[in-house]
Formats: sequence, structure tokens, C-alpha cells
Amino acid sequence: MLILSDKIRTIAPSATLGITSKAKAMKQKGEDVAVLAAGEPDFDTPEIIKEAAIKAIRDGRTKYTPSSGTVTLKEAICRKLERDNSIKYTVDNILVSNGAKHSLYNALQVLCNPGDEVLIIHPYWLSYPEMVKLAGAIPKIVGTSVKNGFKTTVGDIEKNISAKTKAIIINSPSNPAGVVYDDADQRAIAGVCLKKGVTIISDEIYEKIIFDGKEHFSIAAVSEDVKASTIVVNGVSKSYSMTGWRIGYLACDSKMVKLMAALQDHSTSNPCSISQAAAECALTSDLSAEMVKNCDMFQKRRDELFKLLSGEPKLRPFLPGGAFYLFCDVSSCAMGSMKFAERLLEEKKVAVIPGGPFGEEGYIRISFATDMGTIEKGVARIKEFVKNL
Amino acid sequence: MLILSDKIRTIAPSATLGITSKAKAMKQKGEDVAVLAAGEPDFDTPEIIKEAAIKAIRDGRTKYTPSSGTVTLKEAICRKLERDNSIKYTVDNILVSNGAKHSLYNALQVLCNPGDEVLIIHPYWLSYPEMVKLAGAIPKIVGTSVKNGFKTTVGDIEKNISAKTKAIIINSPSNPAGVVYDDADQRAIAGVCLKKGVTIISDEIYEKIIFDGKEHFSIAAVSEDVKASTIVVNGVSKSYSMTGWRIGYLACDSKMVKLMAALQDHSTSNPCSISQAAAECALTSDLSAEMVKNCDMFQKRRDELFKLLSGEPKLRPFLPGGAFYLFCDVSSCAMGSMKFAERLLEEKKVAVIPGGPFGEEGYIRISFATDMGTIEKGVARIKEFVKNL
Repeated sequence: MLILSDKIRTIAPSATLGITSKAKAMKQKGEDVAVLAAGEPDFDTPEIIKEAAIKAIRDGRTKYTPSSGTVTLKEAICRKLERDNSIKYTVDNILVSNGAKHSLYNALQVLCNPGDEVLIIHPYWLSYPEMVKLAGAIPKIVGTSVKNGFKTTVGDIEKNISAKTKAIIINSPSNPAGVVYDDADQRAIAGVCLKKGVTIISDEIYEKIIFDGKEHFSIAAVSEDVKASTIVVNGVSKSYSMTGWRIGYLACDSKMVKLMAALQDHSTSNPCSISQAAAECALTSDLSAEMVKNCDMFQKRRDELFKLLSGEPKLRPFLPGGAFYLFCDVSSCAMGSMKFAERLLEEKKVAVIPGGPFGEEGYIRISFATDMGTIEKGVARIKEFVKNL
Repeated sequence: MLILSDKIRTIAPSATLGITSKAKAMKQKGEDVAVLAAGEPDFDTPEIIKEAAIKAIRDGRTKYTPSSGTVTLKEAICRKLERDNSIKYTVDNILVSNGAKHSLYNALQVLCNPGDEVLIIHPYWLSYPEMVKLAGAIPKIVGTSVKNGFKTTVGDIEKNISAKTKAIIINSPSNPAGVVYDDADQRAIAGVCLKKGVTIISDEIYEKIIFDGKEHFSIAAVSEDVKASTIVVNGVSKSYSMTGWRIGYLACDSKMVKLMAALQDHSTSNPCSISQAAAECALTSDLSAEMVKNCDMFQKRRDELFKLLSGEPKLRPFLPGGAFYLFCDVSSCAMGSMKFAERLLEEKKVAVIPGGPFGEEGYIRISFATDMGTIEKGVARIKEFVKNL
């Protein structure tokens, strides 16, 4: 009998996988499933980016690149961070990885010693606690309440900081609740982290999907001191519909980048060379019109989804300020979120993600990264389901 | 002052990086450098594979795939392993990762607890010890000697096995010395590992670059029992000139695959979707003529390189049986391998990789993954260099 590592035994396999793979199997059998579970935009990568990738293939850019990414892509990332986020970096501050998830993993592996604590704000993206555990550290959940719009407060953060606190993960706009931390929020959080010597990991992957005329503010832009103790994580997946290509990046102190690059050098080497060429095109082309159009479309869907869910007393939708998920309170149905999602799929053929793995048992996550017809059909069925409970 | 993880402090950044980046910088300045340092084939990905990738882009295969790889790619891998290596697996036994390096990393992370030991045969690929350390385990080097063709013996393996030995890494054909373990060798190694309960990690990435009419033998083909305690690691990088695309894979017990897949799910997600389509094409197309042609070319270069180096008493080349490196004894020059490589680059403009990071201080690694002209020019300069010492 093979004895495997203890660390790996503590890791939960993605709890949402059961639902999505079952929904997929049902669809393949020809069943009429309304899938409101997607974690990626429902449109293709823009044509200009695809053409850049095709050119890279034809030009023979099929070889190893530097493990940490090509210099030209890093330069494009630096220009993007200055242009969009008013933060100045040089190429020595950048590490390009196999998706923003990989950037987060590399950051936590380099930051954490066994027993260190990392603060995660509830409700959280389900991979954060697992990644922290994979680094040997302890995830410490900072509670929030729907009354405060699922926003954490400086007091709550401070209360959770101990001598062992190494870092905090900030995610704005957030998955699953679409919480947006504005300029003032971020300044306040930065203040307490700076005072207590806590490294800020700022996951900004949903930056470009933000509603009601707001603009994303990067916490690293607060001050030079804050920038020095912040790891900015971003990528092209959600902004440019490039989830499959797997290009994420982080920006931070160059000494830390060097160690993260050494880790990447011995664990995966460079992200795909073709994808790097595609990402470079995404970050250097003027795609702002397309991005505004996509964001407007997501906002219209959000508004419609929220309206459709409102009025049914057993459903209490939370209005997201960004990203493409709506977090909906179904606690009055008095069953676990996993049970709710499983029964909804079996009985009404609607796929949603249970809230439990995000740290909120009484909720479900409804994705609006799908067409309006599917949204309407899905919500009608959800309403039917809860009425008959 | 930020305190980083202890684990990361023990990791050596790739020691060869200094040489290769310096050589590159010299070339960019227009200097006539003979680069004999490449770790990848010097020809492009075959056209049919590139076209398959372009089709995947045009078809919109730009979305997430299952984290562990697409079912169709896994099926292609199973057919390949049965066809080329006579080992039967099903898709549940396969994990597709971001290069074979990533497969090895995932395997070691899941296998090892802190304090476990992993046997590595000298001279070894420089990332093995670092990966073992990243898993919290201890690399234990099994010595070999050039008199035995750098091959380990069952006795030496057995002597190094302790109660803490979790696994052994076998690499045939090997980097850096091109050692090939034949059928009988592999059966003997498998026997002792099975007896002692040591998991075998078989890195077969150079499988298709094997000389003198030999054929690669996979250790998992020894018996069902051996297969059950072996992790076969392979990829498309070296065989199909696809290093930049980053597709590797492993095959092993399905329960282990599940845990490795959970790790990958929370650390990188799927390898690039386009690259997976390209790899599927590589494994399902008939490219045998092209591969035989490439292997013949490598063998001609090896023969020529060996001949050119022979006769100079300060250079004692070791004839490789596979891969595209020649390991050359320069110990009579009485300087460290790093010093040798640095001075050779500075004084004679030839880039080779020092043997130290591979565990053999008195050697240099000369790559013949380059054209004959560069090989001839490079060797002439190396001879000049050692003569004048």
C-alpha cells in the first residue's frame, strides 16, 4: 500500500466538479439543461488575438521561452499596469505563469512557511483555501455579512491578524459575490496591512467586468509603500475571453519574483509560447470598444437576472458590482447548498454552483456568462423548484 | 523585511541560466558564438501539428478544458502507450500537464512527505533534486562511474534504499549522459524496487531519440505488478519538437491520478487548450518517417561530434546511446566545470553547460541539437582552448 503525502490528503477536489460534469453528461444525452454554472465568458477570443497566435505558430515560435515569460510580454504587462492601474513596474517585477491561478500558487508557495496564516475574505473563491493549505499554511477566514454587502471591514481584518499572519488575499471584483472594493475601501485595507506587516495578494482577474460606471482600483496604486508589500495578480483569461490559453501574471518586488521564477523553473517552465504571443497581442491592441461592449452586455444580463429572481420570497439575490456571477440566498429552502444544486439539476435540469465550497452554505452561485434565453429559462425553473418545496 | 518560505530558500535557480543568457546576449551583439547548449531539437514543430493547432484556434477551442486534460487527448495517450510501449491504461490513469517537468513535479508533490527520500541516479537532470526538495523530501544520489557507462547497478540501488525511501527516478535515455537502460537493466531495477516497495518514476521524455538501432523499453512493461508501482512520465516536447507548447503527461494508478489532478486543479488548471489539440494530432498522426529521419540526423551528429572530440587527450567524450547531449570529461584541465564553461564562452565564444549542476564536476555537457557547421566550429574552438591551458 502506497502512503501518499499528508499535505495532499487535506486538499478537497473541486467540489463543483460533480455538478458541472453531470450537467455536461446530461446535455450530451440530449437533455435540455439550462447551465448557469460557467466560470468563463461565453464568447470566443477576439479575432485579432487568434490571428496573432496563428502568426506565432507559422513563424515557428514553438520553442522554449525564458521560464518566467518573454521580455516583450513582460514589457506589455508593465505598460498595461501603468496605463490601466497607474502602477509602475519594470520587467524584473513580472512573472508570467500558466494562468492567474498559477500566479497565486507560486506566490503562496514562496511566501508561506508551515503554520503561517493567510487571511481570506468570505465568501471566497474555492481554490484560495486549498492553495494556502498546499503551501503548508493555514487559511483564516474573515467573516462578512450580506448586510454589509459582503464587504470586510478594517476592524475585522485587524481582529484576525496574529503574529503568524503572513498575507491577505483581496479579490475585487470578487468571485462568487461580485463584491467591488472601491478606492477608499482599498486604502483602508492597505493601511492596516502596512501597519501590521501583512503582505497583500490582490487578485484582480475580474478587473474589466465591473458595473454601474465604476472603475477598478488596484490596491498597489495606494502608495509606494503599499506597492512594495503587494503582489498584484492578473491575467488575460476573463478580460479577453482567453481562459483556455492559460496566461496569468503577477507583479511584485523583484527579489520575490526571482524566487518565484526559480520555483516555476523547476516545476513547469514557461507558459505556452503561442499563448504568450496571443497575450502580448491582447495587451497591446486597442480592444477597449470590444471590452466595453462585453461589459455592457454582462451588466444587462445581471440586471435582467436580478429582476427575474426578485419577487420570489424564497430567493434573495445579492446584486453583484462586478464579475459574472450572482450569489443568491436560498437558505429559506432549508437544505444544504449541495443538496439544493443536486436536486435542482435532477428535478429541473438547471445547473448552478452550490455556495458551500465558497464558504456560504445557504447560497447558490448563478452564472450569467450565458445567453439571455438560458438565463430566462433557468430562472423560471428555479422559481418552480423553490415554489414546490 | 519580508520572511519567505524556508523551502524556497533551499532551491537553486537554474545554474545553467547564466551561461545561456550570456551567450544569447553576445549573439545579439553580433558576436560569432557557437552555441552547443540547447536543450531542445533545432527544428520546428511538424507542419501537420501546427495546422491542427491553427484549426483548434479557428474552431474556438479557446475555453477551459477539464483540468486534467481532454478525454480525446487522454485516449490518444493511452493508444500511444499501448502501441509504442506495450502498456495498457485507461483514461482514468492519465494526467496531462504543462510539460513533463510539471508531471514530475505533480507526482513528487503527491508522493512525498517531509523527510522521505528519493533516489536519483548520477549524473542527473538538474531539476530532479530541486523538485524533490520542493516536495519537502531529500534527494539521495546513487553514484555511478564512467567505467560502467554511468549505469547504476541493482546492488548500488539496494544499498541506498532505507526505510524512508519513497521513490526512485529512472531516466532512459538520460540527460546529460545519454545513458540507455535496456530491457534487462530495467527488469533488474524493477525487481529490487518491487521487493523494497519503492515507487518508480520513469522519465521517458527522450524515448524517440535513441541510437544504434535500439528501441526504448518502458519499465512499466515488465509486469502488471511493476506497472502498478510505476509512474510513467512522457510528453511531446522532444519527440515532436514541441518544447514551447508545454504538454507532458503521466500514467499511473488511478487513485494517485485523482490526487494529482486535484493538486493541478488548485495550482494551474488545464494545460493550454490549443497545445492539447496539437499534442493530440502529434500522437495520432503517422509521423514515424519524420521521427526516424530526425533520429538518424541526431545519430550522425553524435558520431561526428564524438569523432571530432576524440584524439585530444584533455577531452574524454562519453558516447551517448540516446538524447542529444554528449557528456565530456574535462577533468584533466583542472578547473571547476563552471569556470571551464565561463572561460570557454569568454575566451573562445563557445557555449556549453557545466557538469557540476548535473552532479559531475569534471564534465561539460555538449549539445548536438544544432547544425553540423556549428558543431565543427565549436569543437575546433574547444580543442584550441584546452590545448592552450
